[in-house]
Amino acid sequence: MTGLEDLPLRDELRGLTPYGAPQLDVAVRLNTNENSYPLPEAAVAEMEKALSAVLRDLNRYPDRDAVALRTDLAAYLRHGLTWRNVWAANGSNEIQQQLLQTFGGPGRTALGFTPSYSMHPLLAAGTGTTWVDGRRDEDFTLTAEHAVAKVREHRPDVVILCSPNNPTGTALPLDVVRAVAEAADGMVLVDEAYAEFARPGTPFALSLIEEFPRLVVTRTMSKAFALAGGRVGYLAAGPAVVDAVQLVRLPYHLSALTQAAARAALAHTDALLSTVDAVKAQRDRIVATLRGWGLRVADSDANFVLFAAPRDDSKGIWQALLDRGVLIRDVGVPGWLRVTAGTPEETDAFLNALEELL
Amino acid sequence: MTGLEDLPLRDELRGLTPYGAPQLDVAVRLNTNENSYPLPEAAVAEMEKALSAVLRDLNRYPDRDAVALRTDLAAYLRHGLTWRNVWAANGSNEIQQQLLQTFGGPGRTALGFTPSYSMHPLLAAGTGTTWVDGRRDEDFTLTAEHAVAKVREHRPDVVILCSPNNPTGTALPLDVVRAVAEAADGMVLVDEAYAEFARPGTPFALSLIEEFPRLVVTRTMSKAFALAGGRVGYLAAGPAVVDAVQLVRLPYHLSALTQAAARAALAHTDALLSTVDAVKAQRDRIVATLRGWGLRVADSDANFVLFAAPRDDSKGIWQALLDRGVLIRDVGVPGWLRVTAGTPEETDAFLNALEELL
Repeated sequence: MTGLEDLPLRDELRGLTPYGAPQLDVAVRLNTNENSYPLPEAAVAEMEKALSAVLRDLNRYPDRDAVALRTDLAAYLRHGLTWRNVWAANGSNEIQQQLLQTFGGPGRTALGFTPSYSMHPLLAAGTGTTWVDGRRDEDFTLTAEHAVAKVREHRPDVVILCSPNNPTGTALPLDVVRAVAEAADGMVLVDEAYAEFARPGTPFALSLIEEFPRLVVTRTMSKAFALAGGRVGYLAAGPAVVDAVQLVRLPYHLSALTQAAARAALAHTDALLSTVDAVKAQRDRIVATLRGWGLRVADSDANFVLFAAPRDDSKGIWQALLDRGVLIRDVGVPGWLRVTAGTPEETDAFLNALEELL
Repeated sequence: MTGLEDLPLRDELRGLTPYGAPQLDVAVRLNTNENSYPLPEAAVAEMEKALSAVLRDLNRYPDRDAVALRTDLAAYLRHGLTWRNVWAANGSNEIQQQLLQTFGGPGRTALGFTPSYSMHPLLAAGTGTTWVDGRRDEDFTLTAEHAVAKVREHRPDVVILCSPNNPTGTALPLDVVRAVAEAADGMVLVDEAYAEFARPGTPFALSLIEEFPRLVVTRTMSKAFALAGGRVGYLAAGPAVVDAVQLVRLPYHLSALTQAAARAALAHTDALLSTVDAVKAQRDRIVATLRGWGLRVADSDANFVLFAAPRDDSKGIWQALLDRGVLIRDVGVPGWLRVTAGTPEETDAFLNALEELL
């Protein structure tokens, strides 16, 4: 029997295991930052209609340029953006992969600041881009001073920022993004997957696009729009960036079903985003409760909370919570665990289980 | 205004234009080898039901491993294959990109034999894989002797064969695939996108998978299954190959909608494939008619026909056909043009327009 080790794999892939949280069948799943609320009926009905309308014609390739969807996404983002500022793909992972294929790749370098979204270094590896880790401070903050020093030191082809940062939860002050954009010779990618959950007054990098033609903001419909299963990520940037990724995008990468479903969802933006406030309330409740118990907790602008595990025992606490039917995430930050903010009932289950362990 | 040339693009992308046939609004579109028949009502109804069943739960990520879909695809392929032999993605382009990320990439080489599917060298470029062109004979054939000589000369990490070959149309004899698989140290990828249209008795590389653990067959639902808009490609190979691509696949790359729609389509395989014979009849009619007019035509096992343009004027004939409302494809083989076999009415339109130009 031929095994993985007998195949002519690339050297840097040897010994790796596939990325991904365990998909376990547990009552309370708070491990992948999904939106716990099923889609509202009005959105479902519109999506059903939109999908039915394209099914008979699936024999034809989809609009390769997804212009209608990009137009709708630009309208959602506002900031004076048009479809020429927007590009969409199967999740923001694919968007970021395309950006690294275009502006990173062999002989080029991407700089990130961990702990951050763990797909960033994997996407660098998958595109042959050298990964440089600029690290965050012990308290997970990233200052303009530190970020700019790392940019000057490594002169990366791509800088990847993440705001609100996954898995720590805190949004970057806009002056950090601006300072990096001013210091960098290469592209600056700001991953804003969780933007819609930010605390009031948090500014976003969308407002900097016109000023910085090498700045790219990536977003997703997986989180606030509750469309994780639909796989729609997108970027906003100057039109030249959108032209550039056309050179590496797979032709017809985005199915007619995806385009139709996403457009129908965007037509019900208000209904879909109506869960955001409820999620934020649970997020704030988790932060306050855990702090009330004396645990260290990172500030969160996202739909999840990173907290220091009691007794510094992240592995033991993770397993003990799972034994109580609550699946959260060990994101590989020693001593810390991440929990998704879901429904009030899911928060109850998580908090009750954790309280037992204190 | 910042243009493409002002961005820090990878050098090898400079000056390129995005891949893709013109998407023109023309009455008779025979340029992208789509299946001209809309999906049958029974399949549409089943797909509607399947999509409705997953819409409410799109807030959750899809099955990352797409096990149910892979099980159905394995059952369709037969040859004793199970889901562990099959992997699916958003079109066979994504499958082939994943294979090149896993087994090709920087410092590695892929060998192909042009004229063939023009995405193969682009996928190599997009993954940093060095492309080596082994060329076909002037008459578009590829012999075992020639292929093996090129494999021995270049010792590629990946060999890409295409059978039936796009854009020439002819299937490879199985002894060519076998000879290449025996000679190659690296992976052997056989792109069988058009397999279902082959003439009776054509053997496929699926039968060689058990014997050659480094052989990979890629297929698609875009052509025979008329699901171009649904974006479902897949591979069949030994289980270790499937394990290997997990290391580079994007997590949750295949949406819950895609998985549901593809499974519903596979449940109506007979209905969907019922158009294959009609398409083959038009294909054979085009071949016979053009040969009757004295034109050179490549043998076709696909849903398209490659023919030598009258007066060697491929650009002029392409435009003159378009002026008559018939869009076919200039695939970049000087003097030759490719036409998709569609409905009898589309064949009428194509043949009538071409006859006027003779």
